[in-house]
Amino acid sequence: MSLTYRTAGVDIERKETALRRLRDKIARTKRPEVIGDIGAFGGLFHLAGSDAVLVATTDGVGTKVEIARMLNRHEIVGTDLVHLCVNDALAMGAEPLFFLDYFSTSRLDPAIFTRVVGAMADACAAHRCALLGGETAEMPGMYVDGAYDLAGFLVGAVERERVLEPANVREGDLCIGLPSSGLHTNGYTLARAIVARTAGRRRIEVPEVLGAPRPELRGATLGDALLAVHRSYLEEVRKLRDAVRVRSIAHITGGGWEGNLPRALPAGLGAAIDRSTWTVPPVFTLLAELVEVAEVEQWRTWNMGIGLVVMVPAEDERAALRALPDAISIGRVEKATGERRVRFV
Amino acid sequence: MSLTYRTAGVDIERKETALRRLRDKIARTKRPEVIGDIGAFGGLFHLAGSDAVLVATTDGVGTKVEIARMLNRHEIVGTDLVHLCVNDALAMGAEPLFFLDYFSTSRLDPAIFTRVVGAMADACAAHRCALLGGETAEMPGMYVDGAYDLAGFLVGAVERERVLEPANVREGDLCIGLPSSGLHTNGYTLARAIVARTAGRRRIEVPEVLGAPRPELRGATLGDALLAVHRSYLEEVRKLRDAVRVRSIAHITGGGWEGNLPRALPAGLGAAIDRSTWTVPPVFTLLAELVEVAEVEQWRTWNMGIGLVVMVPAEDERAALRALPDAISIGRVEKATGERRVRFV
Repeated sequence: MSLTYRTAGVDIERKETALRRLRDKIARTKRPEVIGDIGAFGGLFHLAGSDAVLVATTDGVGTKVEIARMLNRHEIVGTDLVHLCVNDALAMGAEPLFFLDYFSTSRLDPAIFTRVVGAMADACAAHRCALLGGETAEMPGMYVDGAYDLAGFLVGAVERERVLEPANVREGDLCIGLPSSGLHTNGYTLARAIVARTAGRRRIEVPEVLGAPRPELRGATLGDALLAVHRSYLEEVRKLRDAVRVRSIAHITGGGWEGNLPRALPAGLGAAIDRSTWTVPPVFTLLAELVEVAEVEQWRTWNMGIGLVVMVPAEDERAALRALPDAISIGRVEKATGERRVRFV
Repeated sequence: MSLTYRTAGVDIERKETALRRLRDKIARTKRPEVIGDIGAFGGLFHLAGSDAVLVATTDGVGTKVEIARMLNRHEIVGTDLVHLCVNDALAMGAEPLFFLDYFSTSRLDPAIFTRVVGAMADACAAHRCALLGGETAEMPGMYVDGAYDLAGFLVGAVERERVLEPANVREGDLCIGLPSSGLHTNGYTLARAIVARTAGRRRIEVPEVLGAPRPELRGATLGDALLAVHRSYLEEVRKLRDAVRVRSIAHITGGGWEGNLPRALPAGLGAAIDRSTWTVPPVFTLLAELVEVAEVEQWRTWNMGIGLVVMVPAEDERAALRALPDAISIGRVEKATGERRVRFV
């Protein structure tokens, strides 16, 4: 049977439905300083007496933490947590100011804790982002043995007239894709289900599936590929904003393409994405070969090799690609009429 | 054997040691806008071009969530999460601006999720605090069945000259205590261990221990008492600041008295607290009678009836107590030489 994110245990539809029920209650908390709507990559708050708009984001690394634990590579999830929050704020046009973390587990292992939070601090320092606080919770009986969870919270700032909003985007704008380093921090429950099923079929242990060198990965292991860092796009987006007019940005995270690209587009517009413009990295094709995963399922769960999509005016294409040699012109903004707003061509 | 927080599974010392190891790494993330040191109730960030200092806090409700689950009272932990973050920001002098939440579980139950986050939204609305964003994580295999965890992030603001800092406090200042409604959100692992041991001794089930009406609680159940809301002190502190000069504030949370009161005092000063000035609420005495808990352990784990301690100049005592009829003058700031800075008299 073809495997889906839902059968693997993550039901994005169920989550969206639950959130919709809360819409009215959340709307009642709105203050005049709040800009924009629920559903953006970061919340916007225009502080009185300041030119700056604050951008607040929160996120977690999902079950990538389980792979990191299994392979004793705890640092990666600390780094990831900072990077993914930086990218979410960046999608609204913001530069990071400060970060706070929440670390919870049933029994604190000081060595692991120090490695995870130490990596967070290093990533914060590298982004000139202050690690302003954190909470460490020891909650006996709530987590399975050895498991821990992380949440990150980041506040950034952007000048009012430089906020990136979907409303800036015009039909005919170009979609510029920035390569991802792998799954980043999304779709790991599906990846873990694939690994577990592969192990079961071959009657070997999960670490063996993760630890075998793979010709498809040029001799690297699946474990290595799954623990590639969630890239921070801060430097690249800075360069791009210096060179061209950036209209909006989509961070391709949980929910894949259809779940994220439309968040950076106004109602009535979608995007035609030409999948022949880049090669899907081998970690994705390998996963989908180990256990059958329908193509549509892959694209609505994983980023498939593009971590950030930047919308720019069509006439800025050359300048954009000159500013960022790794970037790829992957598609174009178009009218969208149906429910699906990302059309693969 | 007398029960301690540590034998119940929470080792605050271990956590502090791990955090100390990270001190240098965290210090390297410091930006010029950051005010004050690690260890305050909230992080301070002075935004360029603004009179305001931002105050950022993060916290969780601990294993109170397990009692709420057992008694199907999920709303309480949503409300608590907002209140405790509001109080932490308040301890720095700040008014709340916006809040974000992180909800994680192995399998999302939409009905429970809606109740928890709905209560958060209501509490935010009641505090005129924008619910600006959130993350909902579904992480199969990480949590024990039915368990979920919550983290809250709050940003508030305070004018630069109105930041409450320990340095404001003088020897001889008074400590004004504001009553708590019970355990608030701290020491639940110890309380749960007491309940479990009581059930074991009497050969009854835990819900029976929690559900029996208690004469000591005027007929209420231990479950009710344990699920009293974590009080928000925002209104009371506003009144107090209108009436007197508030020097600093301690929010009595995890780590009890010794763990929190000194956080609001400068080095070299401590406090003499007269425990005869208020009656410890019956929920604490009942817990400590069910299973023997040493007195020193109670005071370093629970708030014992005082949720917030406000330091004011001695001459403002009458004005403070007039402004807040429920407040109690509980002690005085004094020189402290030893390691313990809270002296009970």
